[in-house]
Amino acid sequence: MSLLPLVGSNTQVPLLDGTTVTYANLDVAASAPALQSVADRVAEVLPWYASVHRGAGYLSQVSTALYEESRATIGAYVGAREDDVTVITRNTTDAVNLLAGCVPGRVLVLDIEHHANLLPWHRVEAGVTAVAGLDTLAGTIDALAGELARGDYALVAVAGASNVTGESLPIGEIVTLAHAHGARVFVDGAQLLAHRHFSLAATGADYVAFSGHKLYAPYGAGALVGRRDWLDVGTPYLAGGGAVDDVEVGETTWQPAPARHEGGSPNVIGAAALAAACTTLGGLPATDLDRHEASLRGRLVAGLSALSGVEVLRLWPDSDEPVGVVTFTVDGIEPGRVAAYLSAEHGLGVRDGRFCAQPLLKRLGLTGGAVRASIGLGTSVADVDRLVAGVRSLLAGDVRGDYVLVDGAWTLAEDPRPLVGPVGLTRLADTAGSCGAAV
Amino acid sequence: MSLLPLVGSNTQVPLLDGTTVTYANLDVAASAPALQSVADRVAEVLPWYASVHRGAGYLSQVSTALYEESRATIGAYVGAREDDVTVITRNTTDAVNLLAGCVPGRVLVLDIEHHANLLPWHRVEAGVTAVAGLDTLAGTIDALAGELARGDYALVAVAGASNVTGESLPIGEIVTLAHAHGARVFVDGAQLLAHRHFSLAATGADYVAFSGHKLYAPYGAGALVGRRDWLDVGTPYLAGGGAVDDVEVGETTWQPAPARHEGGSPNVIGAAALAAACTTLGGLPATDLDRHEASLRGRLVAGLSALSGVEVLRLWPDSDEPVGVVTFTVDGIEPGRVAAYLSAEHGLGVRDGRFCAQPLLKRLGLTGGAVRASIGLGTSVADVDRLVAGVRSLLAGDVRGDYVLVDGAWTLAEDPRPLVGPVGLTRLADTAGSCGAAV
Repeated sequence: MSLLPLVGSNTQVPLLDGTTVTYANLDVAASAPALQSVADRVAEVLPWYASVHRGAGYLSQVSTALYEESRATIGAYVGAREDDVTVITRNTTDAVNLLAGCVPGRVLVLDIEHHANLLPWHRVEAGVTAVAGLDTLAGTIDALAGELARGDYALVAVAGASNVTGESLPIGEIVTLAHAHGARVFVDGAQLLAHRHFSLAATGADYVAFSGHKLYAPYGAGALVGRRDWLDVGTPYLAGGGAVDDVEVGETTWQPAPARHEGGSPNVIGAAALAAACTTLGGLPATDLDRHEASLRGRLVAGLSALSGVEVLRLWPDSDEPVGVVTFTVDGIEPGRVAAYLSAEHGLGVRDGRFCAQPLLKRLGLTGGAVRASIGLGTSVADVDRLVAGVRSLLAGDVRGDYVLVDGAWTLAEDPRPLVGPVGLTRLADTAGSCGAAV
Repeated sequence: MSLLPLVGSNTQVPLLDGTTVTYANLDVAASAPALQSVADRVAEVLPWYASVHRGAGYLSQVSTALYEESRATIGAYVGAREDDVTVITRNTTDAVNLLAGCVPGRVLVLDIEHHANLLPWHRVEAGVTAVAGLDTLAGTIDALAGELARGDYALVAVAGASNVTGESLPIGEIVTLAHAHGARVFVDGAQLLAHRHFSLAATGADYVAFSGHKLYAPYGAGALVGRRDWLDVGTPYLAGGGAVDDVEVGETTWQPAPARHEGGSPNVIGAAALAAACTTLGGLPATDLDRHEASLRGRLVAGLSALSGVEVLRLWPDSDEPVGVVTFTVDGIEPGRVAAYLSAEHGLGVRDGRFCAQPLLKRLGLTGGAVRASIGLGTSVADVDRLVAGVRSLLAGDVRGDYVLVDGAWTLAEDPRPLVGPVGLTRLADTAGSCGAAV
């Protein structure tokens, strides 16, 4: 039973045996479907769309108010303090790249981060220090504390929840540690916020970034929220109209944040969609969300762990209950083959590969990758049970299709399934590319 | 009569006299409403939305195919050559910033450019050269040729059509000149493409950028299309997942274009929306579009020019027929007051200020700005006539409201109009901020 109505929750997909089944999307940790409330809000605001921050027409005044009130809603959802600023970005990756241009010193990141919270920091002149990971959470925090004491850091950047194991560092503890050493804390909230409520004010964290596409609002907007001072004077992120106060050729006066970092016309529809998601999710009691996730995650982990040859990954034995992200390996079967089979023969969407977290996977000794199933608002007990049954069937050799590796992607040697989907598509794409590739 | 169905074309707005009227959006040069076909396409694809380039599920395969086929449609719409690459960006400003990170040499821009095609080039290490503008188009081209002969340029960046006057440089001629000096040509197509068909292959131009929000697809996506070589090796634009091939801590192998520049999860819905706009606009015969625009622009210019005290701006007496963008001044009345009056008393949306083209406005001696009215697919004869009648009434002193300047924005001292718009708005925003400000 879906916690909240989602668009496409009844989408039918074809199976290899000629039947169809309701798609079970267990890859929401990568991108989530739209909340129905989000799609409805977009339909409601679209007739009022016009130029923002410019134009004196009534609709421009409405659209500008809509954009700015969406900004306020988004900031409030993550507990923005009164003097925090909310910059509307494209997604989390974009937000981290933006902040990297504003940090006035060195950044400390752990080597368990995924790429969005790893690669952008390489741009910071002062450099990135990797802390070798340890086997326990307590040991990891000790290592972090040691590095903070040794180095001179302006910022500690941590994931709110791991994209791979769903585990979290204790944000409050990290904040206390970092602040004691004069460093601020950035939380990559992309994964966390899809599963848990979060507050800057309550945790004391200085910055948080997140993406609409993981937060059930896939309309191209995300956000960076946090302390104003660095953002007011940092490198303008998108040079262009809107970001400047005055321009002579060769001489430019930049606006303060957020306009400084939002050059060009903003994504008003995306911001309104993200705000609608924040409103809907904010109305969901934290206990409901936690109970839904914990119950389904527990059922999935128990089901998978009971299968001989299946191993569920954890970073630390001493971490708290992870969010609804479960990564596992199936002994002797390539992750891409597992995922292709689960899709073609069980109508399940899972992810295989290295999850844009290659250093972490290497540390876990999984250079060949793993399989990830993730739980969201729309996940049901039946979805979880279908996945466990699918992996059991695979282990039992109940396999109908002939799966082959073509250009790094596992696919059916022959695929008799009809092409269904939006009008005009000419093919199904192979989806093991970029950092999703297992090779 | 709208050339094509648009969302919100019947939106009613309140007037100062207590009546309501259908909004006449004459600020489409800043941002255009959504085509109905675009909104319909978004509704159609949304139930199929899932993670792209990753995830082995059927919906991920559909969404990835949708994204990549949207990319192909967008490229084809602007006449991409076989080896050109199409990068999905946020908007034109974003696209120009991206290209600025890839240009392997100096960039030549004219001081008539608007900010999106001016400020990002300041980032190029090799620098930007401004060419002093001249009084004729022929003289401007001569100056450009002279500068190309003197300097060593990698790229000439020109607007396809001016955001202020709607005038265009002859792209083919610029291409011939630039190529003769070993320089490539980038066309800022943001304004041009909303009014005219354009082809890289036909013009010989090397790059073009444009925005969905000006092309009747305001879903947060734009594009940069052009030669592959610079984009394949230039600075990765958004460091993060998807942009890399392999990552060890401290060591990264970047993908070639377009993935290199599309870090993080892409805006699939925005790309599908932009592709739908390209398909719809591509199906409109160029002659229909040109006839619609030329007829309405002619009527507007004639109507305004007949009013004593109104001056329509042109850069050059010898330029071709401009696109549907008309900028004018009203003698003795501040542009912001004109725009506020036209909105409150005639239900017209126009823009006042400096149009994110401050150096150009200064060159025209208009440091106080001007008023811009722009014509789009939805503009009717009645809209044009309402604008001319509105300005005539203003000149005749037929003014009901008391307009005052507050924080740089002209507004009503008392505004009795009810607040209409999407649910939840608490106010109308004042819209003279950032580079739209007349002060």
